[in-house]
Amino acid sequence: MDCFVSLAMTKKLVAGLCLTAVLAFPLSGPLSAQEEPPTPDSVVASASSEDWVSIAPEDILIMELTPAADGSGRSVVIQLLPPPFSQPWVENIKTLARAHWWDGKSVYRVVDNWVAQWGGDDPELGMDPRPLPDGVVSPEVPYTVIVRRFLDSAYIPGISEQDWRKDGYFPDSYNQDGQTDFWAGWPISRSKFDAATGPAQQWPIHCYGHVGVARDMAPDTGTGSELYAVIGHAPRQLDRNIAVVGRVIEGIEHLSTLPRGTGDAGVYEERSEDTPIVSVRLASEHPDGAKFAYEYLDTNSETFARYVAVRANRNDAFYTVPAGGVDICNVQVPIRLIEE
Amino acid sequence: MDCFVSLAMTKKLVAGLCLTAVLAFPLSGPLSAQEEPPTPDSVVASASSEDWVSIAPEDILIMELTPAADGSGRSVVIQLLPPPFSQPWVENIKTLARAHWWDGKSVYRVVDNWVAQWGGDDPELGMDPRPLPDGVVSPEVPYTVIVRRFLDSAYIPGISEQDWRKDGYFPDSYNQDGQTDFWAGWPISRSKFDAATGPAQQWPIHCYGHVGVARDMAPDTGTGSELYAVIGHAPRQLDRNIAVVGRVIEGIEHLSTLPRGTGDAGVYEERSEDTPIVSVRLASEHPDGAKFAYEYLDTNSETFARYVAVRANRNDAFYTVPAGGVDICNVQVPIRLIEE
Repeated sequence: MDCFVSLAMTKKLVAGLCLTAVLAFPLSGPLSAQEEPPTPDSVVASASSEDWVSIAPEDILIMELTPAADGSGRSVVIQLLPPPFSQPWVENIKTLARAHWWDGKSVYRVVDNWVAQWGGDDPELGMDPRPLPDGVVSPEVPYTVIVRRFLDSAYIPGISEQDWRKDGYFPDSYNQDGQTDFWAGWPISRSKFDAATGPAQQWPIHCYGHVGVARDMAPDTGTGSELYAVIGHAPRQLDRNIAVVGRVIEGIEHLSTLPRGTGDAGVYEERSEDTPIVSVRLASEHPDGAKFAYEYLDTNSETFARYVAVRANRNDAFYTVPAGGVDICNVQVPIRLIEE
Repeated sequence: MDCFVSLAMTKKLVAGLCLTAVLAFPLSGPLSAQEEPPTPDSVVASASSEDWVSIAPEDILIMELTPAADGSGRSVVIQLLPPPFSQPWVENIKTLARAHWWDGKSVYRVVDNWVAQWGGDDPELGMDPRPLPDGVVSPEVPYTVIVRRFLDSAYIPGISEQDWRKDGYFPDSYNQDGQTDFWAGWPISRSKFDAATGPAQQWPIHCYGHVGVARDMAPDTGTGSELYAVIGHAPRQLDRNIAVVGRVIEGIEHLSTLPRGTGDAGVYEERSEDTPIVSVRLASEHPDGAKFAYEYLDTNSETFARYVAVRANRNDAFYTVPAGGVDICNVQVPIRLIEE
């Protein structure tokens, strides 16, 4: 799929057809030789099969909303974070899915340029105060993990851990003393090792489509029974203040197009405004689980490095001024559905 | 309005009720003394009347869409950029509004995490090939303007032009050698003065809700008859590649919740899927123009500096790890409706 074909066919379109939150498209062969300048899509299309990494079915969560007004299905597919990040919450979420805890719950809060949130259990708001499964409690652990060395520091060839800032594409307002980069398919921040502050910490970040754990005031960390997906500009101020547990890899539009709530904090005023959840299942336990098989582009591959470089330096028939950088949340790790 | 009251009342909400794209709320008195830590809202509430700047009625554009399914109105209010930025396109847009050119046109393209676009005239797509008013042509001018000295470089007290990078809140992936900051209520990027590259350039940037001019391939710059609003993470790679002309200051949800298009580049496949535009008028020519009177918080004020500092360092009953910085597009200049 070539963005420019579409652009040439339809006039005066803002470029970037393919810059949706996450790419999900069928497998296709490598790109044939072409004379056009590289685009993010052409780089992805050139990836070899070795560049793609399977996502385990037990890390895929499928939330089925009631059908839309026109009868079409609304599946929201979420990839859960792998170890070592946010695992106490991820384990809770897997327990809740196995217990079918969300079935019959709803999406009850939607705030423009902020989040869509589901799974409420507050009887004062007219919600079902369903008990949590045994063992599902708010973890009393930090949102960050300690690591001995940076994961994937060499993903941009030729840039060492020492000089990433000078040559890196991602200066980061939300982590100015550290580094934000990719690891195992995810954007991750880390602090600098410092004799004064101790070992480096790493943590997952909030980008468009990312899923986090709603909670009460600190020090509560939330159980994972109430989740939100980001539907606006990355709210990175939430990083290290809330548990990021995954990201929507397909169907974010079923959340981002929902009416905005007009009650306190964007909660719908009446439960009749909610969007009911039919079921939430792990792909490994879903009757049609094989249909939800995905791969991500290896963020340690040369192809991904080229993809980032093109994202940071768009220069083609539409873009004439390359920026020289890209927001980490605008990189958008390519993810694709594996056709059966 | 205090976010924390709402948060205390409704459990497990992601903080940040008030972080909508743009604040629009009635005038209220200064905040009474309080012991709670400052929040963005409390700082805004503490602003004096001198901190607010009126937006001229001829810089406000009201796009009225057909009513929603429940009969409610859908007004999208856009603030146009003031001189010296993008004025040839802004002038075209004012001419088009005065000619009622958009009346009966439609929103015909919506792409998730990207843009909603309106005003098409391509007969091959079933659109009305309405002629443009006399004089409305694609400007052959750059997207940047040359300036002799930085506008408002002192807005963060104590930070000089020389050391902004060390102490600034906004390291910018998309303008790593220059500076991105606020001027006259708008986030603006500028390049560094350099003997090799010549005088500094300045340009408006793409944030959530910002409005730009759709165009054909470069070097076409678009006339302004087809516009888009950003409904996702700031697509800053478009900066300097396309004309930014304004921002939605109220009613962005009437665009961001529209169904996503399934045709090429997110254009709706059938014109019957479009959302019709009833009218587009400048507030200065609108029969109810007085109802669309707005003010923005002076970005050169001490109050705004405090607001940015709190945005960059959330630290209260919900946030416990202040970031030390904030993405320029997450600052969200406060804008309020003036009650009649």
